[in-house]
Amino acid sequence: MTDFQRRSAEINDLLCILNVLNWDARTQMPAGGSGARAQQMATISALAQEKLLDPAYEQAAREVSGDDTENRAAQQALDAISALKRIPAELTRELAILKSEAQDVWARARAASDFGMFAPQLTRMVELNRQLAGALGYEDHPYDALLNLYEPGVRVATLLPLFERLRAHHVPLLQAIQAQPAPRSDFLHAHYPAAGQKRFSLALAQEFGYDTQRGRLDESAHPFEISFTRQDVRITTRFQEDFLPGALFGTLHETGHALYEQGVNPELSRTVLTSDLTGLYAVAGASYGTHESQSRLWENRIGRSKAFWNLHYPQLQVAFPEQLADVDTAAFHRAVNTVQASLIRVEADELTYDLHIMLRVELERALIGGELEVKDLPAAWNARIKADLGLDVPDDAHGVLQDIHWSAGMFGSFPTYTIGNVMASQFYQAAGQQLPELESGLLRGEYTPLREWLTENIYQFGRTYTPHELLKRVTGRGLDPQPYLDYLSGKYGELYGLNTQPNTQKEQTP
Amino acid sequence: MTDFQRRSAEINDLLCILNVLNWDARTQMPAGGSGARAQQMATISALAQEKLLDPAYEQAAREVSGDDTENRAAQQALDAISALKRIPAELTRELAILKSEAQDVWARARAASDFGMFAPQLTRMVELNRQLAGALGYEDHPYDALLNLYEPGVRVATLLPLFERLRAHHVPLLQAIQAQPAPRSDFLHAHYPAAGQKRFSLALAQEFGYDTQRGRLDESAHPFEISFTRQDVRITTRFQEDFLPGALFGTLHETGHALYEQGVNPELSRTVLTSDLTGLYAVAGASYGTHESQSRLWENRIGRSKAFWNLHYPQLQVAFPEQLADVDTAAFHRAVNTVQASLIRVEADELTYDLHIMLRVELERALIGGELEVKDLPAAWNARIKADLGLDVPDDAHGVLQDIHWSAGMFGSFPTYTIGNVMASQFYQAAGQQLPELESGLLRGEYTPLREWLTENIYQFGRTYTPHELLKRVTGRGLDPQPYLDYLSGKYGELYGLNTQPNTQKEQTP
Repeated sequence: MTDFQRRSAEINDLLCILNVLNWDARTQMPAGGSGARAQQMATISALAQEKLLDPAYEQAAREVSGDDTENRAAQQALDAISALKRIPAELTRELAILKSEAQDVWARARAASDFGMFAPQLTRMVELNRQLAGALGYEDHPYDALLNLYEPGVRVATLLPLFERLRAHHVPLLQAIQAQPAPRSDFLHAHYPAAGQKRFSLALAQEFGYDTQRGRLDESAHPFEISFTRQDVRITTRFQEDFLPGALFGTLHETGHALYEQGVNPELSRTVLTSDLTGLYAVAGASYGTHESQSRLWENRIGRSKAFWNLHYPQLQVAFPEQLADVDTAAFHRAVNTVQASLIRVEADELTYDLHIMLRVELERALIGGELEVKDLPAAWNARIKADLGLDVPDDAHGVLQDIHWSAGMFGSFPTYTIGNVMASQFYQAAGQQLPELESGLLRGEYTPLREWLTENIYQFGRTYTPHELLKRVTGRGLDPQPYLDYLSGKYGELYGLNTQPNTQKEQTP
Repeated sequence: MTDFQRRSAEINDLLCILNVLNWDARTQMPAGGSGARAQQMATISALAQEKLLDPAYEQAAREVSGDDTENRAAQQALDAISALKRIPAELTRELAILKSEAQDVWARARAASDFGMFAPQLTRMVELNRQLAGALGYEDHPYDALLNLYEPGVRVATLLPLFERLRAHHVPLLQAIQAQPAPRSDFLHAHYPAAGQKRFSLALAQEFGYDTQRGRLDESAHPFEISFTRQDVRITTRFQEDFLPGALFGTLHETGHALYEQGVNPELSRTVLTSDLTGLYAVAGASYGTHESQSRLWENRIGRSKAFWNLHYPQLQVAFPEQLADVDTAAFHRAVNTVQASLIRVEADELTYDLHIMLRVELERALIGGELEVKDLPAAWNARIKADLGLDVPDDAHGVLQDIHWSAGMFGSFPTYTIGNVMASQFYQAAGQQLPELESGLLRGEYTPLREWLTENIYQFGRTYTPHELLKRVTGRGLDPQPYLDYLSGKYGELYGLNTQPNTQKEQTP
């Protein structure tokens, strides 16, 4: 091991340990342990940052002259060091204190459905994030600097035209769907015991290739995937006994994330290329959007497809014979693909989810750009919901206060959900072009060729390439929503019996 | 916080984190994670040691001039630094490598029941531990230096007369018991579903005062208790569905350890006084023997008593009605207090356990002292088993190869089990003298006064006092086996209908 490798391994170990502490806190820890755990996590974070900013580490990174992979690792370390050094210590300290305080205030404000309670913290949070953007630096828009923390290379200038095309497609499609009768879905709310849900979900995860010798499925209030090297990649889900799709698709979603982490080249373990050094987080995916592309691909492109349920619905009926006695495969497939405008993002369907995301991105961009004041945020939120979804927001709890992200200071993370959707369809299209047998194999439940193709083309590289480089290598192009729009139009056109226009025409008229 | 306090807190955080990683590895981690986990744990250990041996920490400790508690913390830090500095880095490295290698070889040798396979590693392990003793320093016997790592202040010169009295008492008592008919115990081997065992055991633990808001019970191959500050103290047990006492008394045993850790003064969290700095382990108990005194007290003095089962046996019968249909309280109490000479330490009863321990201590002391060669160890082992227990050892797996301790380099830890037994009775006697209502309360299941007395007199202090200081404060004397011998004679005399002599006479003739 070189000095750079040894120091990188130590930093990655610390970030993996931070993930263990985090996983335990969210799945196993008794309530009384939270205060001490927060201190333990703060100690590890501080140590990881200290090791990263040790001048000897920067020196070791500068001296690297190896193969392309090693040089990229060194460059990423230098970039992260440079970014973190630009952030004043006082700003880091203020942000840490405000995040902890603001999350408490937000939780109380949401419970009281009173935006005014949270407005002072949010105002300060916007101000500090503007300072953070200034410290990190940007060319066009301060929001670009924050975006770059989650999705390197993406800018406001990339998002605006992308969002314009998505909205021009999604809103009319939603309206056309709303004009049709809603499919039956009452049976999704029958009683489904959690143990049976867990068995069935985990079996599907394993069919996709999730290796439980290197992972496990647990319960937590908010589902997540987390890794401590590729050798230990854990997922969680939340079981609602009166709503089957929650845990079922939640598990497939986290499985997609897990396949990415389990598929990284073993040689990248304990290196910079499985570490988000700027975010001080151990993760192998190239970016949060790229990661999300894999959760969406396995959850939606595979897990909500007709082929999938043609094969697996009989098994589901065996697991829950009474609940599904009078429901056929087609009815089940329609039900789990129901589109319905709703107020809450985390309950949104595949189509309206993007509208929720775009709203948040546009508002946070305007806040960071100084174009929108915090006091005007609820009105702007409600107006956008009305325009896109046709709904009236009854109170702040069902509107502007619903997400934790802003109280946690996560400005710039929302776009990665929609970018993930777009990328998922691009990757899936490329896989189909390169694997002629893909679709016919999926009819028979052959998931291995797809997973191997994704491993070969995406997973194995960890964070070696930027998301843009990766997308170019795999699909030959940058972010392109066309495959995604084609997929949605085709799928919902068929499900709702719509006489859909080819998308290429619609996009000309935004 | 002073600089000393801040640095101490950081070290304690790292040791608590090491415990979290350890707990997870033993209860939750998928098999594939072991290699990466070992590296993560090595990284944290190295960091904790680096922080401990940082000259700035030693300087900060030297500058402490606070109250008695703070001064003791500083002195303990200085003592640990001094001890660790005396150990050559090369010896530490060699020991770490040998421990990992020797445990593998030992496991294979035990499986093959072939001591010869393990002898070379054990020879080297003895040699390195002699070097370690030399580096640490001692006055009389090299074994004293190793003993001091687990039970500060105890020496060979303390153990020899103690053991002489115990053996002179235990061996004749065992022989008298063996002359009596064995009580019925077949019902302990009925089928007891694990879920029911867990419910019942945990309910008892909670009756003793184990706070599950700050703890939890899990399964593991080897039961243990571990803490990450007093706010998160976890226990594990192992459920054997064909043997009820294993998990039942195992849980009460670990509960005793847990009550100690949960009872420490909150102000000692994140300090030297909840850290074994020399052993690089987060633990609040004054020593391993003191800790064991509490597991033994709650498991044996309370959990195997007649009063306890008079109260709780009806509840056990409700939990397992078929298994215990024809068994009355007295029969159950007799069965769980059966004395039977056996070959395996971890299966031994309360009386013969000490004989197993004393044998190991005498042999390891002789190995470290150079009075016994490794090649002669099996014969010495087998002779001692014959003399004390009257049994022939059929093979090495049932003899000298049964314990992991020597392959793990833990020379000096065995005595703490018997010291714990002795201390438990001293503490219990003192509690009875100071709490006149103790025994009558226990008849009604009132465990709180005992736990509060132990907290007030022992638990709250963490590692503030040495075990000897603590014993003197609480009982007015040093290690004294008399209360323990009285307890055993009285208990087994009654159970087996023996015409026991008062112990005070026996002890005059060793």
